[in-house]
Amino acid sequence: MAIEPIDGFLCSAADLAAYVSGLLEAGGASQESAEAVARAVVDASSRGVDTHGVRLVPWYIQMLEGGRINKNPNVTFAKKASAVGYVDADNGFGHLASFRAIEEGITLAKESGVAAVTVGHSTHHGASGVYALAAARAGFAAISMTHADPAVVPFGGTKPFYGTNPISFAVPAPGEEPMLLDMATSSIPYNRIFLRRATGKPLPPEVAMTAEGVMTTDPFQATAVLPVGGAGFGYKGAGLAAVVDILCSAFSGMGHGFTIPALAGSDYSKPIPIGHFFLILNPVIFQALAAFDERVGAFLHDLRAQPSQPGQKVMAPGDVEKAEAERRAKNGIPIDRTTWAALKEAAQRYGQVVPEERKTSGSAGAKA
Amino acid sequence: MAIEPIDGFLCSAADLAAYVSGLLEAGGASQESAEAVARAVVDASSRGVDTHGVRLVPWYIQMLEGGRINKNPNVTFAKKASAVGYVDADNGFGHLASFRAIEEGITLAKESGVAAVTVGHSTHHGASGVYALAAARAGFAAISMTHADPAVVPFGGTKPFYGTNPISFAVPAPGEEPMLLDMATSSIPYNRIFLRRATGKPLPPEVAMTAEGVMTTDPFQATAVLPVGGAGFGYKGAGLAAVVDILCSAFSGMGHGFTIPALAGSDYSKPIPIGHFFLILNPVIFQALAAFDERVGAFLHDLRAQPSQPGQKVMAPGDVEKAEAERRAKNGIPIDRTTWAALKEAAQRYGQVVPEERKTSGSAGAKA
Repeated sequence: MAIEPIDGFLCSAADLAAYVSGLLEAGGASQESAEAVARAVVDASSRGVDTHGVRLVPWYIQMLEGGRINKNPNVTFAKKASAVGYVDADNGFGHLASFRAIEEGITLAKESGVAAVTVGHSTHHGASGVYALAAARAGFAAISMTHADPAVVPFGGTKPFYGTNPISFAVPAPGEEPMLLDMATSSIPYNRIFLRRATGKPLPPEVAMTAEGVMTTDPFQATAVLPVGGAGFGYKGAGLAAVVDILCSAFSGMGHGFTIPALAGSDYSKPIPIGHFFLILNPVIFQALAAFDERVGAFLHDLRAQPSQPGQKVMAPGDVEKAEAERRAKNGIPIDRTTWAALKEAAQRYGQVVPEERKTSGSAGAKA
Repeated sequence: MAIEPIDGFLCSAADLAAYVSGLLEAGGASQESAEAVARAVVDASSRGVDTHGVRLVPWYIQMLEGGRINKNPNVTFAKKASAVGYVDADNGFGHLASFRAIEEGITLAKESGVAAVTVGHSTHHGASGVYALAAARAGFAAISMTHADPAVVPFGGTKPFYGTNPISFAVPAPGEEPMLLDMATSSIPYNRIFLRRATGKPLPPEVAMTAEGVMTTDPFQATAVLPVGGAGFGYKGAGLAAVVDILCSAFSGMGHGFTIPALAGSDYSKPIPIGHFFLILNPVIFQALAAFDERVGAFLHDLRAQPSQPGQKVMAPGDVEKAEAERRAKNGIPIDRTTWAALKEAAQRYGQVVPEERKTSGSAGAKA
């Protein structure tokens, strides 16, 4: 849960959004596509979710240049019932389609009280929590899910079957940013394997497997991750991954995760169809707003007041990121050297201005 | 995940349902209350979910006799929007109100595509998965959740704050019983502590805590359980517990779990208000039924065909219970000696007929 330090450069959220958006537009993306991606990745990075923040942009540029991403998608919405809708992403950036799904879901849920919106023919949409949070900032509770290509070994298995299939839930909280749970159903993010190779630190026990299906803590031997719950209780994480997969595939019309080709790889030319699932809940249909706020506030207050282990603090979901967001709003968002260099390379190729280089002091951090 | 053997007596599902229902009616419960409880606990027991099956009936009788449970509740439904409803359980058995919520949710979701129904002023409803499964058997996917009194220590904490707050999800599957995930967000069910005291076996590591907030594997020292994910990743289980708690309280109008008095205890005279949350999804609003069935079927097929660890088998959520349900349909449902004796005691007091005693051979089992 700790946010690990980043050695690199600092950028304000506004400058970073303009930089990212400008790069993607220069790479051919429509303005609305570029702005949606920038909004999503800067939102993640501003809260310390660096694995799913600006770090992804060089990869997005690769996919854009390779032709996998439709640069100017015709994103369409179909209302299927009073509380159900479908967004076709037209093989464009998943971020654009996902924000659209949240908007349409809010419109439906205003009347119907709850709404489910699935997205099809999408691709990677970054941090799933971004979309649940967007709904909660508008006063709605939301669940956001996406499936993905295989990286997670099912319980009792030896080969990857599930994506890291995150579950996100956000709810408006009185007097503060919404409470946000944003968790992969795997024990660790897949790219923590690579981060640990870089640092030489071993992985925790019961989170990763070798290509032969043997449990390992050696990041150089690890090729797949395990569902949350480990050797004893991984059937719970795997079960949640199954739920995410079904809601994002059978309900969206896409194939399940195991049928999705590797998202990272050498061929960036063909679309890789992915589905997402969003649920929007309108609190004021369920309860009077004052009563609802009071109950959420009381929950958060009581939770945070719980006695804690020495040197720890009992926190609500997203509290670590809330604190980090305050620090980053003041100090700037840190971008690691590899990402900075890749963005700079693209900027130079596209003739875009690179922001002034402001070195991190080491106080900022990245989630690993 | 394994279903542990039960030493006791065997009963057919039909006989057991009639026995339980008869006992509860003799104890004063309305016929519809008694039948709802019997349906729920026999459904759980018939699938090997013995922790939440017939084993609970003696406790239900205690609560009924103590006055906690309203024997003849006026369960009401209020439609709050095209896709949202509220069931007031009137302090009756949670089982009756929960089946009603599923029925009303199905009625709404037929038109709206998705529906959320909360339940308030309820009490224990047994195995949460029973209700999701009931919806899925009728052709709908469903999520079922309940919060409960504190038994689970929050991540980084030392004292119980969350209930075991289960998440259940069921989806119709072609040519077989629905797929059902039914999981507590704790690592282990609370009563596994007591089962391990009885057998003398230690608990797994990182699942339980002493009253002083120290991790323990000694069932005699353990007084609380931990969220799924253990010492390293318990913030995920705790985060899911928070989601369940908020959906079951702020959305139902009930207080959050920490404010709920202990369900098990000496005072069974006062109602203990609990909330539940149900979500019903109508697959045919999202996709053509044939396409939907094909995708769920393909998912299950591909998952079950995955290579496995030596001596294991990759399974879909609920596969263990499906196999057990087939065995029990043939051999009968095993009831442990303690439960059998308690039911018999009540039957004799109420002047009810005790089923013929048919001893288990040891092949049947109970989840511990």
